[in-house]
Amino acid sequence: MKNRKKIYEGKAKILYEGPEPGTLIQYFKDDATAFNAQKKAILEGKGVLNNKISEFIMTRLGGMGIANHFIKRLNLREQLIREVEIIPLEVVCRNVVAGSLAQRLGQEEGTALPRSIIEFYYKKDELGDPMVTEEHITAFNWASTQEIDDILAMTVRINDYLSGMFAAVGITLVDFKIEFGRVWENDFARVILADEISPDSCRLWDTTSGEKLDKDRFRRDLGDVIESYAEVARRLGIMKDMPTVIQGGLH
Amino acid sequence: MKNRKKIYEGKAKILYEGPEPGTLIQYFKDDATAFNAQKKAILEGKGVLNNKISEFIMTRLGGMGIANHFIKRLNLREQLIREVEIIPLEVVCRNVVAGSLAQRLGQEEGTALPRSIIEFYYKKDELGDPMVTEEHITAFNWASTQEIDDILAMTVRINDYLSGMFAAVGITLVDFKIEFGRVWENDFARVILADEISPDSCRLWDTTSGEKLDKDRFRRDLGDVIESYAEVARRLGIMKDMPTVIQGGLH
Ligand SMILES: Nc1ncnc2c1ncn2[C@@H]1O[C@H](COP(=O)(O)OP(=O)(O)OP(=O)(O)O)[C@@H](O)[C@H]1O
Ligand SMILES: Nc1ncnc2c1ncn2[C@@H]1O[C@H](COP(=O)(O)OP(=O)(O)OP(=O)(O)O)[C@@H](O)[C@H]1O
Ligand SMILES: [Mg+2]
Ligand SMILES: [Mg+2]
Repeated sequence: MKNRKKIYEGKAKILYEGPEPGTLIQYFKDDATAFNAQKKAILEGKGVLNNKISEFIMTRLGGMGIANHFIKRLNLREQLIREVEIIPLEVVCRNVVAGSLAQRLGQEEGTALPRSIIEFYYKKDELGDPMVTEEHITAFNWASTQEIDDILAMTVRINDYLSGMFAAVGITLVDFKIEFGRVWENDFARVILADEISPDSCRLWDTTSGEKLDKDRFRRDLGDVIESYAEVARRLGIMKDMPTVIQGGLH
Repeated sequence: MKNRKKIYEGKAKILYEGPEPGTLIQYFKDDATAFNAQKKAILEGKGVLNNKISEFIMTRLGGMGIANHFIKRLNLREQLIREVEIIPLEVVCRNVVAGSLAQRLGQEEGTALPRSIIEFYYKKDELGDPMVTEEHITAFNWASTQEIDDILAMTVRINDYLSGMFAAVGITLVDFKIEFGRVWENDFARVILADEISPDSCRLWDTTSGEKLDKDRFRRDLGDVIESYAEVARRLGIMKDMPTVIQGGLH
């Protein structure tokens, strides 16, 4: 287990070679970064929670027809996933004004959007993940028109499903970031959902109190980051088999 | 003439009340600004040249069916225009990679785009004119879906026409920025082209030498700014009645 090949080490996760060709092991670290990695910390237990939450969400999405990379969870910090060729886009879907949308466009945080907005960012740390449009994406061959259409259709469904799921447990899905990748099936490339969906990649506000239950607690030094992630897991009913996490005792 | 009402003073132009309701006088200054007004200069004769060039282009576009605000030129620095309610968007159309597209997306300047790209920027100096998509534009009510469609259709036609016009005189239309506004006709708002089209708002490269004949000469301290604007006017055949401009003797 220890001398398997490391494929990529990112800010929050490590990818290892998987047991079969076309598979990878996704390891969730406790590292937290924000503002293009200018701010950093170790949040003990975050990896365990995100592994569990992402497993839960990917499984649910798979169940309603959103093909995704998740195969199975291996242990507290690792999951077996299907290897994809990542499309270099961060797809952001917003229901409520927050974060960069508020800042960039001078709009008030917390304002409900009349309709959901889907944004694309070119995934390139050196350039600070600039916002792009479908025209840039096709001009520079990052994805085809057909792939963009598939991504948009999946993102709309994911947003609807997750909005309903979170609403049911008293959480408002303000926005989220997802990534997609290509898998080949008989010489035909298909787009599936990849990466993770967790409080690191979503804005989740308690519907009654407005309290933030996501990575903004870290970005804005609000404290209780892990407790909030654990609260999300608890409300989703996925804490039964991991009682020690909230005490921060897991490695 | 001297105590007429000033409606708005911008970085490059002044708007005065016009002789009839629904009209304005657009005065072209010699002031040049770049990088959101961090860089400034007076370029003697620029206003005269841009007044003439914008008149020429607006007249041509009017002739091929692009409704616009130009009514008539009044003198060397002023033109009578139709007052519009400006739509707060800078519409950028690109044929070749340059400027912010090269910087933001790490693409090589001078690369021909496989298809023209149209971008929208929210016209708001305090926010640095951030890029936006159609979804932001409709979410925040800056323009309706119908207006965006009209703007896109007009922009495509303007690009085709001006690309052909400049190509005929040995100039490559790399990109340009335009603005649109609403006029009311029997309670019905129609979108027309407004503002200016000049070497201040276009990237124009000599097709054989690649030499820049536009505001980038000022932005990048390449010198001969006025001479280049005059060269554009000369090639378009609109210098006959203004021979002294290139000597910078006009006020
Ligand atoms: N199924 C998959 N196959 C291949 N690569 C994947 C898959 N799922 C996710 N990835 C990639 O693995 C990496 C996960 O690591 P991590 O999220 O820590 O990256 P990162 O360096 O943080 O980049 P960023 O913050 O921009 O997402 C990402 O680059 C992601 O695009
Ligand atoms: N027909 C018109 N009716 C009303 N306003 C107009 C019309 N044509 C242009 N304008 C506006 O007049 C102003 C022209 O001044 P100028 O171009 O100097 O503005 P500015 O302050 O430079 O703003 P920017 O650089 O962001 O365009 C602009 O705000 C433009 O939107
Ligand atoms: Mg990541
Ligand atoms: Mg202007």
